[in-house]
Amino acid sequence: MGQCMALSEAELIARYFRSCGAQRRDVVLGVGDDAALLDCPPGAQLVATTDTLVAGVHFPPSAPAAAVGHRALAVNLSDVAAMGARPAWALLALTLPEADERWLTEFAAGFASLARAHDVALVGGDTTRGPLTVTVQLLGHVPPGSALTRAGGRAGDLLYVSGSPGDAGAGLAIEQGRLTAPPAAAAYLRERFLLPTPRVALGERLREYARACIDVSDGLLGDAGKLAAASGVGLEIRFEELPVSRALVEALGPDAARQLALTAGDDYELVFAVEPGRAVELERALPPSQWNYRQIGVLRAAPGAVLTRDGTVMEFSHSGYQHFA
Amino acid sequence: MGQCMALSEAELIARYFRSCGAQRRDVVLGVGDDAALLDCPPGAQLVATTDTLVAGVHFPPSAPAAAVGHRALAVNLSDVAAMGARPAWALLALTLPEADERWLTEFAAGFASLARAHDVALVGGDTTRGPLTVTVQLLGHVPPGSALTRAGGRAGDLLYVSGSPGDAGAGLAIEQGRLTAPPAAAAYLRERFLLPTPRVALGERLREYARACIDVSDGLLGDAGKLAAASGVGLEIRFEELPVSRALVEALGPDAARQLALTAGDDYELVFAVEPGRAVELERALPPSQWNYRQIGVLRAAPGAVLTRDGTVMEFSHSGYQHFA
Repeated sequence: MGQCMALSEAELIARYFRSCGAQRRDVVLGVGDDAALLDCPPGAQLVATTDTLVAGVHFPPSAPAAAVGHRALAVNLSDVAAMGARPAWALLALTLPEADERWLTEFAAGFASLARAHDVALVGGDTTRGPLTVTVQLLGHVPPGSALTRAGGRAGDLLYVSGSPGDAGAGLAIEQGRLTAPPAAAAYLRERFLLPTPRVALGERLREYARACIDVSDGLLGDAGKLAAASGVGLEIRFEELPVSRALVEALGPDAARQLALTAGDDYELVFAVEPGRAVELERALPPSQWNYRQIGVLRAAPGAVLTRDGTVMEFSHSGYQHFA
Repeated sequence: MGQCMALSEAELIARYFRSCGAQRRDVVLGVGDDAALLDCPPGAQLVATTDTLVAGVHFPPSAPAAAVGHRALAVNLSDVAAMGARPAWALLALTLPEADERWLTEFAAGFASLARAHDVALVGGDTTRGPLTVTVQLLGHVPPGSALTRAGGRAGDLLYVSGSPGDAGAGLAIEQGRLTAPPAAAAYLRERFLLPTPRVALGERLREYARACIDVSDGLLGDAGKLAAASGVGLEIRFEELPVSRALVEALGPDAARQLALTAGDDYELVFAVEPGRAVELERALPPSQWNYRQIGVLRAAPGAVLTRDGTVMEFSHSGYQHFA
C-alpha cells in the first residue's frame, strides 16, 4: 500500500537486527526465514509475554533511541522476571515513520546491549511503516511447576519490593519539564526512567523463596493490589518502610517521595510475597542490602489495601496507574 | 503518561480477550498474569513469528474490525504454515486510539473465529493507547529437524504455488476504489483481501514432500525469488501456468490477471519446491485439485528469475512488493 523508504525491509533487517543480542546454541534458525526455529529445553515450561511502547504514550518522542531499544526489552524482561523464569528469545515488531539510519543504529545498540547482558537472542521480527511503536515478545522458561504467579500469596505472608520505586516516575516528570531537581539527582532519576533495570536474577532466585510475585509497571500500590486480589487476600503497606532513593528525596522531600513510590508507574521492580517461616532463609540466601529489596508490609485476610504510618491507618485516594483509566 | 479512556486495561482484557480462541490443555496459565505459562510438547522444536498490521498501511482504515482481527492472526498463521509447523499459542499487542466497544467486539470475534479453526489459544497480550496497530506473535511446533525453510531448494526442483495469487491485490484495489469488477467478482476479490486463508493444513502436510517453502506476502515473484536466493539457486516461472481465479480474469483480463498474480502482495499462499522424484507421490497424496496448488516453474542453477511464456523469455521489471522500497 504505497510504502516508500530508502531501504528495503530485507536490508533493514540484515543491517540492524540479524545478529542483535546474544548468540545461543538453542536457536536453530533465527532472523531471516518465515519464522524462528528454537530448541525447547527438555522438560521446561515455556513463558511468553509481550509489551508495546508507543511514542508519546510510553516514552517522550525526545527519548534517546538507545533508551527506547533498552526499554522495549526491559519491560518484557521484567514480566519474565516476575514469573521467576529465565529469558531466552525475543521477537521485535518495529513500526517506524521512516528508516532513519542513525536512530536505528542507536535503537539496535540499546536493545542488543541489554539482550546480551541477559543472554537473550533476537530471533525474529517485523519492520513496518507507521507511527513509532515498538512491540517485543519475549520467551523464556522455568522448570515445570515452579513459575511464580500472582495467585500464590496467603494471609500473613510478608510483602517485599525491590529497588527504589518512584524514581522512574520522577525521571519522567523531569524529562517532561514538570519537575526540577539538583543536577546529580535529576540525572540519576532521568536514567532510572530511560534505562530501567529489570530484576531478572532476583526473579529467578525468588522461585525458591516467594509464593507470589508481580512486576511493578503501573504503580506499586495498584500492582501489589493485583497480586493480593489474584491471591484472594488483602494487603497492608507501611508507609515509613517504603524504600526511596536519596535522589527522589532530594527532588521531592521524604513524604512526597513515598507517595510517588506508591503510585508512579514505570518502575519495573518486583513485588513478592514470602511465607513468614521462609523470611530468615530468604534474607540469609539473598542479603537485602546486596540484592536490593525490602519488606514493606504484609498480606492480610481482609480484602482491599490498607496503608499505615507509624501504626495509624492513612487515607489514600490513588489506586495506581492504568493504561485505560 | 496521561492515557484517558473509559475502560481500564484489566477490564478490556477481561471482557474481550480472556477466553478468545481455542481452549488448550497445554496452556498452564493464559491471559491475566505477568506472562503466559505453556507446556512445550516433549521433543518438539518451537516455531515463533510476529507480524504487525498498521491501519492505513496494511489495511484501509475502513476495513471491518472482524477482518482486521482475522487478518492479524492469518498473516502469522501463514508464516507458521510456511515452516510446516502446527500453530498453538498467540499473543496479541493491540494499540488503539480509543476503547470502542463495538470495534473491539467485532475484532475479537474475527480473531477468535480463525483461532478456534486452527486450535490456537490466545495466551497473553498488551493493550495500549495510540494509533491503531495490531501485532500478533504466534508460537507453534514441529518435530525436531523437520521444519521447512527457505533454504532447502535445489536446482531442478519443481516450484509450486497454492491458491490463486493476485486476488488479494485486486481486492485491495477494489476496496480503495482503484479497480472495478462485476459485483460477484468484486465481492469475491474483496473477501480474498479482507479474509485471507492461511494454508496451515497444506503447510503441515508439505513437511513430508517439500524441500523448501515460503509464504507469499509481498508478491509471488519476489517471495519465490527469496526462496531461490536462500537456496543458492535461480528460478524459472512459466507465465501461462500461473493459477488465476475466474474473478480476477473477469476483473482484469487474463494477461493483467497473471501480471498481478506475480507482483501483488497480501496473498498468504505458499510457494514450495519439490524434488522431481517426489512429485508423483506428492500429487497422489495431496491431489492438486483438492488441495488447491499448481506447478508454476522450476528452480535452476543459474541465479536470478526468468519468466517464460510459451517457451519464450519475457521481460519483467517488477520485483514484488517491499515494505521499505
